[in-house]
Amino acid sequence: MSNQINSAIYGSAPTTRRDFLAKAMAVGGSGLLLASMKAWGMDIASTQSAPPLLSGSGKGKTVLILGAGIGGMTAAYELSKLGYTCKVIEARKFAGGRCQTARTGTVLEELGGEKQVCNFDKGQYINFGPWRIPFNHRSTLHYTSEFEVPLELFNNDNDASYVYHENAPGPLAGKRLRQYEVKADMRGYVDELLAKTLKSGMMDQQVTTKDKALLLDYLSNEGYLSKKDLSYRGTNGRGYKVNPGAGMTPGAGVASDPLAFGDLLQSKLGHIYHSVHEFIQQATMLQPIGGMDQIAKAFEKRVGKTIRYNTEVMSLRNLADKVEVQVKDLASGKASVITADFCLCTIPLSVLRHVDTDFSEKFKTAIQGAAYAPVGKIGLQMKRRFWEQDDGIYGGHVLTDIKGINLISLPSSNWQGKKGTLLGYYNFEAAAAEVSALSQLERVEFALSAGEKIFPGQYRSSFETAFSVAWHRVKYNLGGWAHWSDEGRANAYPVLFEGEGRTLLAGEHMSHLTGWQAGAIESAWQQIARIHQRLSA
Amino acid sequence: MSNQINSAIYGSAPTTRRDFLAKAMAVGGSGLLLASMKAWGMDIASTQSAPPLLSGSGKGKTVLILGAGIGGMTAAYELSKLGYTCKVIEARKFAGGRCQTARTGTVLEELGGEKQVCNFDKGQYINFGPWRIPFNHRSTLHYTSEFEVPLELFNNDNDASYVYHENAPGPLAGKRLRQYEVKADMRGYVDELLAKTLKSGMMDQQVTTKDKALLLDYLSNEGYLSKKDLSYRGTNGRGYKVNPGAGMTPGAGVASDPLAFGDLLQSKLGHIYHSVHEFIQQATMLQPIGGMDQIAKAFEKRVGKTIRYNTEVMSLRNLADKVEVQVKDLASGKASVITADFCLCTIPLSVLRHVDTDFSEKFKTAIQGAAYAPVGKIGLQMKRRFWEQDDGIYGGHVLTDIKGINLISLPSSNWQGKKGTLLGYYNFEAAAAEVSALSQLERVEFALSAGEKIFPGQYRSSFETAFSVAWHRVKYNLGGWAHWSDEGRANAYPVLFEGEGRTLLAGEHMSHLTGWQAGAIESAWQQIARIHQRLSA
Repeated sequence: MSNQINSAIYGSAPTTRRDFLAKAMAVGGSGLLLASMKAWGMDIASTQSAPPLLSGSGKGKTVLILGAGIGGMTAAYELSKLGYTCKVIEARKFAGGRCQTARTGTVLEELGGEKQVCNFDKGQYINFGPWRIPFNHRSTLHYTSEFEVPLELFNNDNDASYVYHENAPGPLAGKRLRQYEVKADMRGYVDELLAKTLKSGMMDQQVTTKDKALLLDYLSNEGYLSKKDLSYRGTNGRGYKVNPGAGMTPGAGVASDPLAFGDLLQSKLGHIYHSVHEFIQQATMLQPIGGMDQIAKAFEKRVGKTIRYNTEVMSLRNLADKVEVQVKDLASGKASVITADFCLCTIPLSVLRHVDTDFSEKFKTAIQGAAYAPVGKIGLQMKRRFWEQDDGIYGGHVLTDIKGINLISLPSSNWQGKKGTLLGYYNFEAAAAEVSALSQLERVEFALSAGEKIFPGQYRSSFETAFSVAWHRVKYNLGGWAHWSDEGRANAYPVLFEGEGRTLLAGEHMSHLTGWQAGAIESAWQQIARIHQRLSA
Repeated sequence: MSNQINSAIYGSAPTTRRDFLAKAMAVGGSGLLLASMKAWGMDIASTQSAPPLLSGSGKGKTVLILGAGIGGMTAAYELSKLGYTCKVIEARKFAGGRCQTARTGTVLEELGGEKQVCNFDKGQYINFGPWRIPFNHRSTLHYTSEFEVPLELFNNDNDASYVYHENAPGPLAGKRLRQYEVKADMRGYVDELLAKTLKSGMMDQQVTTKDKALLLDYLSNEGYLSKKDLSYRGTNGRGYKVNPGAGMTPGAGVASDPLAFGDLLQSKLGHIYHSVHEFIQQATMLQPIGGMDQIAKAFEKRVGKTIRYNTEVMSLRNLADKVEVQVKDLASGKASVITADFCLCTIPLSVLRHVDTDFSEKFKTAIQGAAYAPVGKIGLQMKRRFWEQDDGIYGGHVLTDIKGINLISLPSSNWQGKKGTLLGYYNFEAAAAEVSALSQLERVEFALSAGEKIFPGQYRSSFETAFSVAWHRVKYNLGGWAHWSDEGRANAYPVLFEGEGRTLLAGEHMSHLTGWQAGAIESAWQQIARIHQRLSA
């Protein structure tokens, strides 16, 4: 891009790249916009941080959006801004899709299950759908910023939290450890092993003298090795026997003893961590204050008028110049037909399978191409935040190998409050299927029995009330998220991405961020750009 | 402890160990209390989580407390509860000591320096004294809980934040990297090196066949090594070239390339992290919402009536049956004498040195035994949170080797707000002394020049207004915190701990948690137990 264009656009100092692009479009139209984006290696199709910048208008054109989840509402919000008439069809009486938060009064009826009415205290809640926003999900954060949804940190990585593996091989089985003990010791011993091997000269063929010195320096520092003999003998980062404090006693405190290297190795507890977290699980993470559904509500506030609630999609027909969708009002049972210039379908594939459509066989087969993950969660309201008061654990996850539990996650809000609601399990696949076969009461008992092993004398006695979900048993979802096999990604996914006739698909299932709100948002952004292109042609 | 006593005390289920102790005291007096504490390995002198449980009453006795910092107010609060008459002398017009937060209107005059009046926008602030609470500082957290000071997480460890070493040896000099790049690559390569050495059989003398298999498994998992050849070739946790997203483009995203092992080693950037953080720096950390001084204000609300503000201590005399302190009202200039049964002096040693006392020569020499740390901080109000908007960094520290900067810390509050106030430097010792010699304007320029290297085009243009402190130049502090040499700890510290006559010392300097509020609180807890013992005898 020439400096001339640059200065024509700038004038006053631009604030963000996006502002710059908006100005580029104002000054030079979509041609300059696209040139600018290409110069930066951006492309409308890869927009991830902000909705596509679309020129022209959607005035007089109608887009029918199936599903008022985060994806559907994203499309409705952005298309409405462009002038499109949006009609959103939502089977539930509320918007948000999986972006739900259970608090007092929340009702959930699983297929073939009991009806649950949440009776948490006021202020207590559990995000039983999405519950955390990675710092790198710029799309989700775009809307929390635009809609001014207040955020707080979500503690996804608390080294002070426990790990409890009852089936760990060796003497660490059933031992409750702090995660920092495992990290410090495992890394310390491994650093010691490599350092001593280097020092011995055994690797002098592989490593230059200069690199050897640098490596020894690195390893000593990384693993808190003794300067004298390169041994690891523990470090304060694994906790103290007696914490340092005031005066002479405790004074400097009393150091703790490291676990035995052999025991640690045998236990395989080192697998609880990696060099760094995977990108998607990495700190820093955030959450809306008061519950994840604050995002859904913020969308709903803006596009609620376009939503027909309590209305089920019965059939979908792609006609030559329009799309025709038959819907049923669930209150009255009355069917009606809605037509539109285009349709964006955000219905989960697990549900879309059962809708009467005139898609081609190829497309219908592709819809079958993704598995939907059985996923279960349970929120347990505790009358006392014993994990903070007694154990000094402020948020994060307790890791366990207890089958069907996976983790116990401690709330990242209302610190030191009177009560707290923790996540009692987060299970997947076979374990989720198994646990979901239990009655609500049995699920609670299952969660309490497990938690009691890790927090004996605290867990069960603090419990007050629960709320659980098995997403694979929730109507209109039938699974936590789309799970694509390599084969499905290669064959079915591209077919679905192309859409058919006047229908395109969007949602987390149409992304590589399955199970995340960002997948739904970015997918919607992509597809509305394509709809706009089609309808502008 | 017998079950009989147990059941006598319990009745209804006890909630915490502390509740149990309180009941023990109610039922069996201090004898049972002490027996119970000993049974649990606790001791009044080592109380760290809660104030000492003291029996009896302080009615009719007066304790004079010098200094209304966190330590002094802790003592006043707890002693008043016991019935003591507390008189607190404070030189400043406000309480809190170093626990201060700069916001609009805050005035700071350094010795020999200009007068600063903070003109941050409403809602913007910088904690220029203590700024974070480790999860293991149970004493500080005891009061945030008791006083219901709302807390939020403080992001002390953000792998997504930058590291920028302009003096790093080799090609990484002056390269801005994400901390997760350094961690993932450095650990990945080191894991690879050890794994391949193990695999080669070179270490078969040192490591058993079984341990070798376990180690290879651990290393592959820890460092994301290739299952095929144990090589490290990068991992998504070090970030992508193009993040994964929706549809076909970006779809799965584009992986990033690891840095070269040799370059990393040479740069010594691996020193930015350890196996685990030191205990005191470990996640999880917290901060009061709205500024650290919320803790000071919560204390002040409860003990403010006992404080004589704007009053300087002129002299201290230990008499046979009382302590006599001459003070000067700074408004009127009028001197007066206060007597009390006992004195708790929380004045920093750096200041106490200059007070006229009748301490023995030995005690006076001990007072000289601690060095006080030069420490500087600067808060920079930015009109735009570019680190969030442009760089996706939500809190944490930017690490740099730029002399006198040390770190740039990004705020852990008001996420996605319009403006933000970051910590522009945090310097110590010689560097702090050097920077503090600059004028306020020069300090700002120094901080901006450094920040601009790391956030080019963003830092300087976003800057609005600053507030800086050099604690060694602040009257009534003369340093950030006490720094004890090994010799000082061995010789001077025990002398000071014993006190002299009817005077005991408290404060962060009388702890092994120097520079932390917990040190002041726990020190106060210890010394009031001793005062109570002395006055009850």
